[in-house]
Amino acid sequence: MSATNVPLAITMGDANGVGPEILLRYFSDGGFPSSTVVYGDMAILESGADRLDLNIPFKSWRPTEAPDPQKLNVFDFGLLSVHDLQPGKLSKSTGAAAYQYIKSATEDALDKKISGIVTLPINKLATQMLFPTFRGHTDSIAVWCDTKDYAMMLATEEIAVSHVSAHVSLAEAIRILNTARIETVIDLTRTALSSFVSKPRIAVCGLNPHAGEQGLMGYEDEEIIKPVIDHCQNMGWQVSGPHPADTIFHRAIHADEYDGIICMYHDQGHAPMKLFAFQRGVNVTIGLPIVRTSVDHGTAFDIAWKGIAFTDSLAHALEYARKMVAGKQA
Amino acid sequence: MSATNVPLAITMGDANGVGPEILLRYFSDGGFPSSTVVYGDMAILESGADRLDLNIPFKSWRPTEAPDPQKLNVFDFGLLSVHDLQPGKLSKSTGAAAYQYIKSATEDALDKKISGIVTLPINKLATQMLFPTFRGHTDSIAVWCDTKDYAMMLATEEIAVSHVSAHVSLAEAIRILNTARIETVIDLTRTALSSFVSKPRIAVCGLNPHAGEQGLMGYEDEEIIKPVIDHCQNMGWQVSGPHPADTIFHRAIHADEYDGIICMYHDQGHAPMKLFAFQRGVNVTIGLPIVRTSVDHGTAFDIAWKGIAFTDSLAHALEYARKMVAGKQA
Repeated sequence: MSATNVPLAITMGDANGVGPEILLRYFSDGGFPSSTVVYGDMAILESGADRLDLNIPFKSWRPTEAPDPQKLNVFDFGLLSVHDLQPGKLSKSTGAAAYQYIKSATEDALDKKISGIVTLPINKLATQMLFPTFRGHTDSIAVWCDTKDYAMMLATEEIAVSHVSAHVSLAEAIRILNTARIETVIDLTRTALSSFVSKPRIAVCGLNPHAGEQGLMGYEDEEIIKPVIDHCQNMGWQVSGPHPADTIFHRAIHADEYDGIICMYHDQGHAPMKLFAFQRGVNVTIGLPIVRTSVDHGTAFDIAWKGIAFTDSLAHALEYARKMVAGKQA
Repeated sequence: MSATNVPLAITMGDANGVGPEILLRYFSDGGFPSSTVVYGDMAILESGADRLDLNIPFKSWRPTEAPDPQKLNVFDFGLLSVHDLQPGKLSKSTGAAAYQYIKSATEDALDKKISGIVTLPINKLATQMLFPTFRGHTDSIAVWCDTKDYAMMLATEEIAVSHVSAHVSLAEAIRILNTARIETVIDLTRTALSSFVSKPRIAVCGLNPHAGEQGLMGYEDEEIIKPVIDHCQNMGWQVSGPHPADTIFHRAIHADEYDGIICMYHDQGHAPMKLFAFQRGVNVTIGLPIVRTSVDHGTAFDIAWKGIAFTDSLAHALEYARKMVAGKQA
């Protein structure tokens, strides 16, 4: 198989959440790109298709095989049976299975048997029943890839928003803010965007209101963030800031002044982006040796398998992964 | 004059910024509501109208007089001459004059000679040249009103977003977070919205990512914010949370689940709102004995008197002030 034909893999996520449901519905709606395979359990997908009254042609697929373009190609892990499908239920078996799909997909991506991974949601508590130290998709994938420097980027067609810190308390995000990490995230963002934007224009947010107003509100903008920006500019990168976080999103998105925004903490990027791009945002892990995107929602146990969960986020996550794979190959 | 005919006042702001320019252009465009008067300097407005090539009928107006509905009614402070108009210039005289317009307007609003105030932007540094302890519009108005408990609310037709803290560093915002202040801001928001929404539905944001995820990321959501919400619910208020700040804006605005959102710090509310409602957001000071709204932008010295500044924010600030005045009278 030539490099460009290596399939992209979707991990189906926790069987009791919306993951396998939306992939079945998205396939059935005809939006599914060819050369895409699923890492999951055939018993769940077949039984789920019945449950949703969808007539889906399945094919059992194995890594290195060519996928059948007319069918839903499934790498069947055989870990679950039809009885495991209990919508909304926190289950040790489905949580553990979800973990295996991701682990295998990561290994296969590193081995170039697949071109990248799009992950559907797992339930962290379910996975922790068997793997108590499991800290979530992203951290696990980074460990398996032996990657220390990575970051979470929320992306749409218009803008990519990277986070210097993510799942830590706000007080901790301030405490750990440091020049090396900010520079790393700027560099990872540049590198990620460079595969499809030439000379990406990057805006760096301040930490404090109005980016501190020249030190009037907090010292971090002037003493931690600004020196990094000066350094990046000296290297010839198109980086500016620190910008007030409350106006930069408008400037980037509606006035097209920037390709990327660097945020200092989780909600600084997530709050505007989830309002602006609800269901359209793609969660990208940058800094990995493999391509990995994710839908921007959780297992949504409360609505799982009811046929109402949106499939848009999966469509966008697939599209962004393909764009990254193409950029890497070019 | 009957209470409903008491005019609303616009303070023209710093003469060298966009304030007087946008009020002249907005009047000229015909959008200016009748029974609206301007606190400012006639010399600047007349010279500014010439500069913009606008033919504006002025009337010199004094408090308690009935405004002329065909004219731009100006309470002329006589503090500035035509030579003071120097677009974009940081000036002691224009800064000091801007201070006087606000101070008089606040006193006249307290005396019910005007029904409320819509403020156009001042330049804090210019005003500080003569009044070095000046901390900005809002704090000064609160002092003149002898009000201790007030808050900044960003409002659009769809949603009102109040802030537990505003112009302090992020570290300070976390440090000073306390139950009494959160309850005060919830109550001020309820009261403000109650004048035009019956039983306002209020969502309270958490401080940490995912509202702390049951204490996994930071203790404040569970230990400071949640007890306030429980207390408010016990009083029969329609208050919920703490909600993750990255999804609540979508739910409130696009799914119409809430009328108001309470944010724990400046950018938590400002970043999503300024992206969503750029040029439409109205800055409202809640908790004052008078109605006060403001445009949601600064003096914009770089584009002042060039005829390009948007007038939309003034239109929205006027409309919101009228709505609040009507609500108070009802």
